[in-house]
Amino acid sequence: MPATVIGHMNPDTDSIVSAIAAADLYSRRGVQSEAAAQGEPTPETAFVLEKFGLSMPRLKKNVAGEDVFLVDFSDLAQAPEGIREAAILGIVDHHKLGDITTAAPLEAWIWPVGCTSTVLKNMFDFYRVEIPRSIAGAMLCAILSDTVIFKSPTCTAADKKAVEELAEIAGVEDTRALGLEMFKVKSAVDGTPAKDLVFRDYKNFDMGGKKVGIGQLEVVDLSLLDNVRDELKQELARVKGEEGCHSVCLLLTDIMKEGSDMIVLSDEPDRIGSAFNVELDGDTVWLPGVMSRKKQVVPNFEKAFK
Amino acid sequence: MPATVIGHMNPDTDSIVSAIAAADLYSRRGVQSEAAAQGEPTPETAFVLEKFGLSMPRLKKNVAGEDVFLVDFSDLAQAPEGIREAAILGIVDHHKLGDITTAAPLEAWIWPVGCTSTVLKNMFDFYRVEIPRSIAGAMLCAILSDTVIFKSPTCTAADKKAVEELAEIAGVEDTRALGLEMFKVKSAVDGTPAKDLVFRDYKNFDMGGKKVGIGQLEVVDLSLLDNVRDELKQELARVKGEEGCHSVCLLLTDIMKEGSDMIVLSDEPDRIGSAFNVELDGDTVWLPGVMSRKKQVVPNFEKAFK
Repeated sequence: MPATVIGHMNPDTDSIVSAIAAADLYSRRGVQSEAAAQGEPTPETAFVLEKFGLSMPRLKKNVAGEDVFLVDFSDLAQAPEGIREAAILGIVDHHKLGDITTAAPLEAWIWPVGCTSTVLKNMFDFYRVEIPRSIAGAMLCAILSDTVIFKSPTCTAADKKAVEELAEIAGVEDTRALGLEMFKVKSAVDGTPAKDLVFRDYKNFDMGGKKVGIGQLEVVDLSLLDNVRDELKQELARVKGEEGCHSVCLLLTDIMKEGSDMIVLSDEPDRIGSAFNVELDGDTVWLPGVMSRKKQVVPNFEKAFK
Repeated sequence: MPATVIGHMNPDTDSIVSAIAAADLYSRRGVQSEAAAQGEPTPETAFVLEKFGLSMPRLKKNVAGEDVFLVDFSDLAQAPEGIREAAILGIVDHHKLGDITTAAPLEAWIWPVGCTSTVLKNMFDFYRVEIPRSIAGAMLCAILSDTVIFKSPTCTAADKKAVEELAEIAGVEDTRALGLEMFKVKSAVDGTPAKDLVFRDYKNFDMGGKKVGIGQLEVVDLSLLDNVRDELKQELARVKGEEGCHSVCLLLTDIMKEGSDMIVLSDEPDRIGSAFNVELDGDTVWLPGVMSRKKQVVPNFEKAFK
């Protein structure tokens, strides 16, 4: 049975593309591997896969008894079922180190860069394995997505270098135009159920023993969300109750204005406000400059919940 | 204040040498760093440092409030005090992934190879940083030590390649002769208190909620230990009581015969025996072929304690 390469729950583009790229790399290094995904593709991911002629990895909810490589996460809370009964052979990631442990030595490449695909680009180079043209194109999009076309504070020189080199391989001439095309797809929310929007990029975190859910929606203009705000709040209230969360937050990020409206439902709204030194007046607060959940929101929450 | 680069408790040669090498690499990549150690050098480590003209890193027991890089471990049980109040910037390791987590993205290079110095050799190459001659010599010794001159089942092609290339840099012509010279220093136990021998390479593990201590002594001939066996057992009994361990084991590894006598003091000797499918008759059992705590002992214990 080939090893499974799988990203986190509620997969974003990087999580899907990294699984495809890593499965290709591991297989060509001699460990037969197959990409999988914990959920359906977002419209953005579907656009990227279609653009470069790649297939969506098969869905997989349980990895018990399998050999697995994890991409784009290292938290148990984001893992598929059966992870404790799987043999974890490797991790490629760009987040903080989570609570996953292993019973045997593994190969972990975890770098403080903007995107897992950036780490993978360097792994391909390190092992002198050529990146297929289609995969290079998708990896390039994953990096543009995660770094919000280089605007996110998570973006590093390594991400820009990777995009440049991947564009060369994929034959993409105008990466910024491709990025904007992709973000316009991402911004199209009309007709999408509020539930799908909340879970499009949603993660639960353990914050000092409390379960905190944080979702993020990135759009080219916040006004695109005016019609769905009320529905989003209702949906967040439902999620908070069903998942038993202490707090649920949704970041509505305006990638052109470079900031986020954060909708907050919390048992302790003051604690959430204190994470950003703001008073929560009502359920929404504008956070100027805040574009990255990982680099700007999660670390502040961790301090506030310590 | 420079970042601190530090290895595990009861440091072995790799833990010290990796800290020195990593501090050099990080500093030259622009993050001012200083090597530190959680304990005194073993005779083997002292021999290696002296041979290549390196200084022993300063002792450090607490890292609260500091920026730190960890080498050769990722378990809280092996970390210095204050680790939860430190900012972990990176990890270089070759063990199973432990329970250390971080609040922010980090740079982790963790590979399933025989020695952390092997990973570091590849990091120097990746970042195109030249390895100083003295550090190359010490890294070479660390790899020969961890892989028991390539005899350990943990040894990989990457370790052998690293030794070859480091020998070139350090100007070492006969690596096997250097390895044997080093292991003879390591085997000299006369005049060393039993306590120091037990703790020379001792680690506590959390095995299914139970504290299990495992030490290892590698010698070129087990008969060198005949005179100290009784004292070692007394010392192990003391350690078991003082540390509140469920089990304490000491591997006496004969690197020429390629196997280990394991001394066992346990609340459940049968469980320890079952880890190797042997009957524990008395307190000692010969385990043919067993040379690696990490690859052969710890995984078996983890299964037996599941």
